[in-house]
Amino acid sequence: MHMAKKTQSANGMYQLVKELFPYCRSITGNGVRQTLKTIQKSIPLELIEIPTGTKVLDWEIPEEWNISDGYILDDKANKIVDFKELNLHVLNYSTPVNKKVSLQELKDHTFTLPAHPDLIPYRTSYYQKKWGFCMSQNQLDSLSEGEYQVYIDSEHKKGSLSYGELYIKGNSSKEVLISTHICHPSLANDNLSGISVATFLAQYLLGRTLNYSYRFLFIPGTIGSIAWLSRNEDKLEHIEHGLTITLLGDQSNFTYKRSRRGNSEIDKIAEYYLEQNYPKHTILDFIPYGYDERQYCSPGFNLPVGCFTRNTFGEFKEYHTSGDNLEFISEEKLQESLQALQDILEIAEHSRSYINTNPKGEPQLGRRGLYEKIGGTNDSKLTQLASLWVLNLSDGSNTLMDIAIRSGIEFEVIVEASEALKQCGLLKEVQ
Amino acid sequence: MHMAKKTQSANGMYQLVKELFPYCRSITGNGVRQTLKTIQKSIPLELIEIPTGTKVLDWEIPEEWNISDGYILDDKANKIVDFKELNLHVLNYSTPVNKKVSLQELKDHTFTLPAHPDLIPYRTSYYQKKWGFCMSQNQLDSLSEGEYQVYIDSEHKKGSLSYGELYIKGNSSKEVLISTHICHPSLANDNLSGISVATFLAQYLLGRTLNYSYRFLFIPGTIGSIAWLSRNEDKLEHIEHGLTITLLGDQSNFTYKRSRRGNSEIDKIAEYYLEQNYPKHTILDFIPYGYDERQYCSPGFNLPVGCFTRNTFGEFKEYHTSGDNLEFISEEKLQESLQALQDILEIAEHSRSYINTNPKGEPQLGRRGLYEKIGGTNDSKLTQLASLWVLNLSDGSNTLMDIAIRSGIEFEVIVEASEALKQCGLLKEVQ
Amino acid sequence: MHMAKKTQSANGMYQLVKELFPYCRSITGNGVRQTLKTIQKSIPLELIEIPTGTKVLDWEIPEEWNISDGYILDDKANKIVDFKELNLHVLNYSTPVNKKVSLQELKDHTFTLPAHPDLIPYRTSYYQKKWGFCMSQNQLDSLSEGEYQVYIDSEHKKGSLSYGELYIKGNSSKEVLISTHICHPSLANDNLSGISVATFLAQYLLGRTLNYSYRFLFIPGTIGSIAWLSRNEDKLEHIEHGLTITLLGDQSNFTYKRSRRGNSEIDKIAEYYLEQNYPKHTILDFIPYGYDERQYCSPGFNLPVGCFTRNTFGEFKEYHTSGDNLEFISEEKLQESLQALQDILEIAEHSRSYINTNPKGEPQLGRRGLYEKIGGTNDSKLTQLASLWVLNLSDGSNTLMDIAIRSGIEFEVIVEASEALKQCGLLKEVQ
Repeated sequence: MHMAKKTQSANGMYQLVKELFPYCRSITGNGVRQTLKTIQKSIPLELIEIPTGTKVLDWEIPEEWNISDGYILDDKANKIVDFKELNLHVLNYSTPVNKKVSLQELKDHTFTLPAHPDLIPYRTSYYQKKWGFCMSQNQLDSLSEGEYQVYIDSEHKKGSLSYGELYIKGNSSKEVLISTHICHPSLANDNLSGISVATFLAQYLLGRTLNYSYRFLFIPGTIGSIAWLSRNEDKLEHIEHGLTITLLGDQSNFTYKRSRRGNSEIDKIAEYYLEQNYPKHTILDFIPYGYDERQYCSPGFNLPVGCFTRNTFGEFKEYHTSGDNLEFISEEKLQESLQALQDILEIAEHSRSYINTNPKGEPQLGRRGLYEKIGGTNDSKLTQLASLWVLNLSDGSNTLMDIAIRSGIEFEVIVEASEALKQCGLLKEVQ
Repeated sequence: MHMAKKTQSANGMYQLVKELFPYCRSITGNGVRQTLKTIQKSIPLELIEIPTGTKVLDWEIPEEWNISDGYILDDKANKIVDFKELNLHVLNYSTPVNKKVSLQELKDHTFTLPAHPDLIPYRTSYYQKKWGFCMSQNQLDSLSEGEYQVYIDSEHKKGSLSYGELYIKGNSSKEVLISTHICHPSLANDNLSGISVATFLAQYLLGRTLNYSYRFLFIPGTIGSIAWLSRNEDKLEHIEHGLTITLLGDQSNFTYKRSRRGNSEIDKIAEYYLEQNYPKHTILDFIPYGYDERQYCSPGFNLPVGCFTRNTFGEFKEYHTSGDNLEFISEEKLQESLQALQDILEIAEHSRSYINTNPKGEPQLGRRGLYEKIGGTNDSKLTQLASLWVLNLSDGSNTLMDIAIRSGIEFEVIVEASEALKQCGLLKEVQ
Repeated sequence: MHMAKKTQSANGMYQLVKELFPYCRSITGNGVRQTLKTIQKSIPLELIEIPTGTKVLDWEIPEEWNISDGYILDDKANKIVDFKELNLHVLNYSTPVNKKVSLQELKDHTFTLPAHPDLIPYRTSYYQKKWGFCMSQNQLDSLSEGEYQVYIDSEHKKGSLSYGELYIKGNSSKEVLISTHICHPSLANDNLSGISVATFLAQYLLGRTLNYSYRFLFIPGTIGSIAWLSRNEDKLEHIEHGLTITLLGDQSNFTYKRSRRGNSEIDKIAEYYLEQNYPKHTILDFIPYGYDERQYCSPGFNLPVGCFTRNTFGEFKEYHTSGDNLEFISEEKLQESLQALQDILEIAEHSRSYINTNPKGEPQLGRRGLYEKIGGTNDSKLTQLASLWVLNLSDGSNTLMDIAIRSGIEFEVIVEASEALKQCGLLKEVQ
């Protein structure tokens, strides 16, 4: 086993984020479509459209929302906020409006962050129709009494919800699911870093011989995973490992949130990898809040899906604000995140479960050239020991990852030992 | 859910202890009957009499013991100890005696506590017939050589063992068992505090709509619970939770001793409640020694019965001595104990196990008015989160108490969330 | 239960080691046979011979190796190393040789320990045929250029592998397996201390009434246990406890290495015993490396066999060197090791699993004379409490050792209580 080599994708990933940053994404509409089409330039993503009104599990596909402009004019006709400068200024999924309002009425429709008075919040109103704006508390405080022209050129209409899916076939029909949300407008870390890393991760896998098959989902949060789950229940039994990914460009150390099962193989792998490589990482137990792992880990599905991020969902000042911009993320951290995910999947690719075909007593390793010929030297002791661990624990109840954890021997050495043993016919894979 | 409101029972509880204090209780006899009849003035207790000689499990109901007087006269006819002043002075269940004895013979029949020379011990001799007295070591040391008149006017006869039972019917046939022993004579904390708190707890429950049915037992220790178990094996399957209670008036912090199972729902509830409310409490693992939980938790029954006390069985200086008197307990602590038990039962009343009726993906809470309409605000976050936890863990294997413990969210909030979800049809109760 | 009394075997054990020290043992050959015959003078050991070429599990019995002499002469005909002085000087299982070689060729066939330049290593070449010598690094460094006469008078031939077995019949067909390896030449701690302690342990058991049957194996390492397992698969189901023993004469504290199961009864017993008696002991989790427990604990057998030693396998400077000599071990430590093993087996003999025949409520101990007649005194409290623990936990799922661990009451007291209860018919043994 060779851990994934460093690739020079950092600049490409950052450029993709930059290209996607201005699009006004939402749970439906042209911003999402435009995003998916941009991704298609890098990977052969399939675009799926589900019509408004379609029942998906307990939910219904909402109307499609599109927006072309939005601003507030003061009584001197100055644009005090402008959607075209920053799409966060308009309440996401806002109804259209075009009228003169008092300062008070404007305030009733404006969202701010009093605790961070210089940041503009990102707000949505998907399931209650209303119009609204977002601005900084400082700006709101500076407005004087008078009349304001509020203008939002948006529409809700029967249309469809769009998402992207890429299936990469490997040797096995068992699947790894990688899911990232695509419903946030101009927010760089949440969600563009996830979109970009997922794109380059898919690109990386497309060029390789794979054990697992891989399924990438680029979906609007909640309604997107609900829609996908609703239409793909027959595929769920193939999912062996899964990760929701986002928040991958900031300066924080890595965070892994366990699947609902708590000790899935992907949980063990992610924890093992971070422990070995990033001593300052954070491991969180599953909670039914966060990203789409909420849906994958609902009790009726209970899939082995964890969540891999740098910063923690909702726990940083810039979260869902204008502070989550292109300066908040870096090429270097995007690259580090991609590398970590490549490495974790590389471990998953190799962490099989074997049966020792010669379980009674130790097999004679020497005869097979597997064992030091001269007893008592120290050379190759570690590989010998790894072979003994693999043989001893390969009773069908342990994966190679379990054996690495139990023995304290590096996973790569365990894999090397298992490959040598397999070549001698001493291991056969558990199906 | 509303936690039990404070009631002004403190004075009443202390008065009941005071009224019962002088009666000479034993495992059988008029002292017990008089005690039960006094309790009947507060709650509709049923009195049960089981004839001497009746086989109960491995035991047999002993003879009834009654006593009217007892004293020791010195050679100047001074009463040096007098049963009528303090009934602890006569060995409980003592045979009658009326004779002159030497100081040596008196000493052979007298129990003292050399380690606490000013305290008079409480001693019994139920299963070996003998006469005896109890006094302080100091008093015994002060006696001079000479003749003493020993007089005990007691009798053993075929009669019956008496105990009291109160069944309070709730909506469910599932039961909570509350058991307190009534066989100790003038000891305030052990057992009168338990008798009094149990009486007022029953009174409190009698006025309420209840989920569980409740069964209160006022029984002589060991032989009483053995007798009840022997006659009621058919009822045991209904017992969902149980507590033996006593030692509830002293100044100590609360102690909870786990049931033999160690992780019964009542164990979780009592531990959770004490952790939340009384940081200095003590949790003890089950040991097969103590009060009647020994019988309820014998391996052939293994009922989910813990033991709730303030001080710990046998671990305080005043235990089974004249120091366990009316000054050793207080109105305030009796009240606090009653409150704690009311609260614990209130939790038990609400800690159901539900099934999420929409287990695939999250149900759309917003559509049902259960979810914040505007995404991204902080209001009601806790209730939303509680709803998500209840939905996620309600797969039939968790009670609401389990969910409170796992989520770290206050039990009351979990209950409120579950009630809202139930009203929307998103939860159904596990039967 | 009476713990094993001290016996005066110390001198005898040391003398046996001394007698066996010079023999040149290997995995086969006359050194092994001579060793087994010497042991037969103390215990009625059965000698088994398995012919060369016999298939045993994945292995094959190798040729028999015998050696009568070996030395190196320098160009002045000085014997610079001499097999007859110390048999470690010849590579164990070496092919014969008789020729003149250059210093360089000699070096190519000589093993040293550069890190411990004054020690001569013990080396083997069982499965690759070659000739060789072992000497100290200091000696090798002192050799000058020139010609050397190398002479080894050994032969490999079709013959047999020899091992010793002693079965001591007890009341039950359930067995305790004690296994020690006998394939190391002049090494006192590893393996002669194990051979000697095993011999005296067998002698000790031969004179006693036993619950278990005992099987002692004196076998060459690896191939010996493989051979025995191969021929005795039908006996394995009887093995309730097992220990491999060696390294029992050095100054270290005791070490116990758990069986692969990790919580076998023998694991609990050994750990309990060491905790009670030797606070400075070491407990190791199973690893598939070490002595013959590797074979007994291979996944296809998974027998409850731990490993009991003083020092730890491979972890001391003298391990597999000329430093493991008669001075490295002491009479006193051999005696202490024997005593510990006797005590551990004594615990195993008594740690039965019982069923409480009166599981509903407590049985009336007083009626059976088992309980204090006067309630409230402190005498015999511990025995009473032990009786209550035994009754409460004897539901078939706990051994007496489990009960000792759970209750915190000394094992001997638990055994005494169980014996009294058994006499009253309150316990019956689980078969």
